[in-house]
Amino acid sequence: MTNTTLNATANHLHPFSDNQQLKEKGVRVITKADGIYIYDDAGNKIIDGMAGLWCVNIGYGRKELADIARDQMNELAYYNTFFKTSHPAVINLSAKLASIAPAGFNHVFYTGSGSESVDSMIRMVRHYWDSVGKPSKKTLIGRWNGYHGSTIGGVSMGGMKGMHKQGGFPIEGIVHIEQPWFYGLHEEGETAEQFGIRAANWLEEKILEIGADNVAAFVGEPIQGAGGVIIPPSTYWPRIQEICQKYDILLVADEVICGFGRTGEWFGHETFGFQPDIFTTAKGLSSGYLPIGAVFVGDKVVEGILKGGDFNHGFTYAGHPVAAAVALKNVEILDDEGIIKNVHDKTGPYMQAKWREMLSQFKYVDDVRGVGLIQGFTLVKNKATREMFPNEGETGTMLRDIFFSNNLIMRACGDHIVASPPLTITKEEIDLMLATAEKCLQEFETAMDSKLGA
Amino acid sequence: MTNTTLNATANHLHPFSDNQQLKEKGVRVITKADGIYIYDDAGNKIIDGMAGLWCVNIGYGRKELADIARDQMNELAYYNTFFKTSHPAVINLSAKLASIAPAGFNHVFYTGSGSESVDSMIRMVRHYWDSVGKPSKKTLIGRWNGYHGSTIGGVSMGGMKGMHKQGGFPIEGIVHIEQPWFYGLHEEGETAEQFGIRAANWLEEKILEIGADNVAAFVGEPIQGAGGVIIPPSTYWPRIQEICQKYDILLVADEVICGFGRTGEWFGHETFGFQPDIFTTAKGLSSGYLPIGAVFVGDKVVEGILKGGDFNHGFTYAGHPVAAAVALKNVEILDDEGIIKNVHDKTGPYMQAKWREMLSQFKYVDDVRGVGLIQGFTLVKNKATREMFPNEGETGTMLRDIFFSNNLIMRACGDHIVASPPLTITKEEIDLMLATAEKCLQEFETAMDSKLGA
Repeated sequence: MTNTTLNATANHLHPFSDNQQLKEKGVRVITKADGIYIYDDAGNKIIDGMAGLWCVNIGYGRKELADIARDQMNELAYYNTFFKTSHPAVINLSAKLASIAPAGFNHVFYTGSGSESVDSMIRMVRHYWDSVGKPSKKTLIGRWNGYHGSTIGGVSMGGMKGMHKQGGFPIEGIVHIEQPWFYGLHEEGETAEQFGIRAANWLEEKILEIGADNVAAFVGEPIQGAGGVIIPPSTYWPRIQEICQKYDILLVADEVICGFGRTGEWFGHETFGFQPDIFTTAKGLSSGYLPIGAVFVGDKVVEGILKGGDFNHGFTYAGHPVAAAVALKNVEILDDEGIIKNVHDKTGPYMQAKWREMLSQFKYVDDVRGVGLIQGFTLVKNKATREMFPNEGETGTMLRDIFFSNNLIMRACGDHIVASPPLTITKEEIDLMLATAEKCLQEFETAMDSKLGA
Repeated sequence: MTNTTLNATANHLHPFSDNQQLKEKGVRVITKADGIYIYDDAGNKIIDGMAGLWCVNIGYGRKELADIARDQMNELAYYNTFFKTSHPAVINLSAKLASIAPAGFNHVFYTGSGSESVDSMIRMVRHYWDSVGKPSKKTLIGRWNGYHGSTIGGVSMGGMKGMHKQGGFPIEGIVHIEQPWFYGLHEEGETAEQFGIRAANWLEEKILEIGADNVAAFVGEPIQGAGGVIIPPSTYWPRIQEICQKYDILLVADEVICGFGRTGEWFGHETFGFQPDIFTTAKGLSSGYLPIGAVFVGDKVVEGILKGGDFNHGFTYAGHPVAAAVALKNVEILDDEGIIKNVHDKTGPYMQAKWREMLSQFKYVDDVRGVGLIQGFTLVKNKATREMFPNEGETGTMLRDIFFSNNLIMRACGDHIVASPPLTITKEEIDLMLATAEKCLQEFETAMDSKLGA
């Protein structure tokens, strides 16, 4: 049914893949895209329920961005900002980002990706504590099942056990606490609010174990994205904030997925009501049209860094003029067209309600959850006992493949199924996406019933 | 004389900078570029003797690349290659890269930068040894004063002591040997060829110290770039190759600077006559027009990895369609227009000879060296005794600033001064660059004479 192109893998090792399998079975070649749709080389029209990789916030095919890329490339294709130089594209983007960021965020440090943003943040946090005379504060605390990119720093900061297995992770000076996953970790009779406080207190326990004088920062995604859209209870982040303040620990939000509108606000920490000291971004910053990332640095941290002399860190492509010009236009479109407000007021609540309603009929689907245009549910063998399927990820991948062969892109994070469509998706397109998903879930349920002998 | 824009730093923390100083003194705003020239907002025309940051190999302002960026962005602005998908831009680039790479290199793994290429290489090397059943081979050996990027993995792999100081580097499992710097490290009466063998043997000593069963790879730039264009004697790399073969250690060339023509061949290891198992690239791959990097993986390593199942590593922007399309056109231009052959046969030898001749008149300049269009010399207090200036970097920065205020971009790496112009530079432009440099060096010599009371 789908066209695979075996020679597409002749010279290309794909990321996060079993490349031997790809060479044997081929891949699907995506040739064009427009709005929420991508098309393959067999002419199939596919609903992209993942906005690429949680990144194409304004949808595909916006010609304004292509024109700006061309114009900037003709004017100044590249220049660096290392040696007392700058350029208009990065100056203008910086001003715009400061204008849309919450109060107290007036500076950005540029990178080329979410991974580089996290890696830079780790180095910056340690440089900050050195600069303010507390060099013993070096350890960063992350969470199991958090995702913070794929550099050595990012893999370490994240808590993905499959990634940690390959190469000796995490590196020294990075430790993890358990995730605030109510569905899987709450105790009998415990409310979500009670669990949120208990989960946040795991941070305090870890700080006391290490000694506050040795702890530099706590780092977390407002919603754990690649971990399966794990949404913490409302009590979690405010309590985390209290603990960080109490022990003089920097609080870092990784906004690579939530940032630039995914939750219905510019940034996820605004949705969850907390104030980080630093937050990392990429993806939605340019809607993925070009590679760029940015670390937003709060005034307190900037003040410290300015005392510290040279910060010996940076990337050749930091603040790349073409990527910066495209990012600026992208942020202007998000702002001027009211796209985020529309997610907050209309399409977000609509998609959440419709998913809940549609999914309620399926016996292997539980814990339907979401905020704005990020959505997840969990495949379970038994809803009453919350028993998961064996071989974590096998069932999720099976359903993911059914979606894929029905021309709907969804993602399996283990046995959590997640969706994160372009923020420009309309109610009609949400209806179409859900109708396709419903058909796939029926197919899945029939297959599972047969497999389980139900 | 130059226009500084103080508010350019209002919202932007610059890489590798003392940002407090930038805020006080302002920066120079680069507004456009064409060929080998960049222009600032005061209308100054500046010779870019560094090709951006060793990256703008085909020169600025090639409109074909801008048109291709626009067209690809309109067609398919983004898609990933994680989940059994690919796209024409990355398939075509991969085929082209395999066609220009030396024999035995048929696969590439994509990244967004040189830093991400190095970080990925570290993870890939360890995954390879796991996959072929030798998981104890984990340690990578790099060199002091090597530069391998600015992620935590890259900083560790590199041997820049100023970077290591900030944050606790290197991470575990990465160690360093001394660099093959003949000028600074040879013994009395030792020839360059003898020194090259001795320097390579430092690798063997380190392997024996750690135990070959624990060593995964040796990693080096064919020429140490940011270390100050340190060019090893001709005997060095062949001996390194022998040692790696003897102890079953992977040999990795970091071609981020040398790659794509800088040395007058496609890759620096071709110029130096050795065959790595893996080599990392970025910069010249796209001439810096867009951020993209690639790890070239040799057949032996691919074969191992294909046995290893999932490689749990990858970046959202790996093989980004717009960056891949632009990179392909850039490589085609380098190929079709004979740019690298011209560096090899004409402009490279011309620039090297002219620099040597011009620099021979200056008493604080020694060890003039270069290959193709990469060039370096060292500022010394006393040529006869090879005594360096005190406060390493202070004198180099002083001269760099003189070049800068005379509208010539050169770079100071400590007290090594380096040049690396676009590969499209003509003989006439080389003459102009050198005439400007000569004037600057006269100004520098006068200032130094006065400072030293000579």
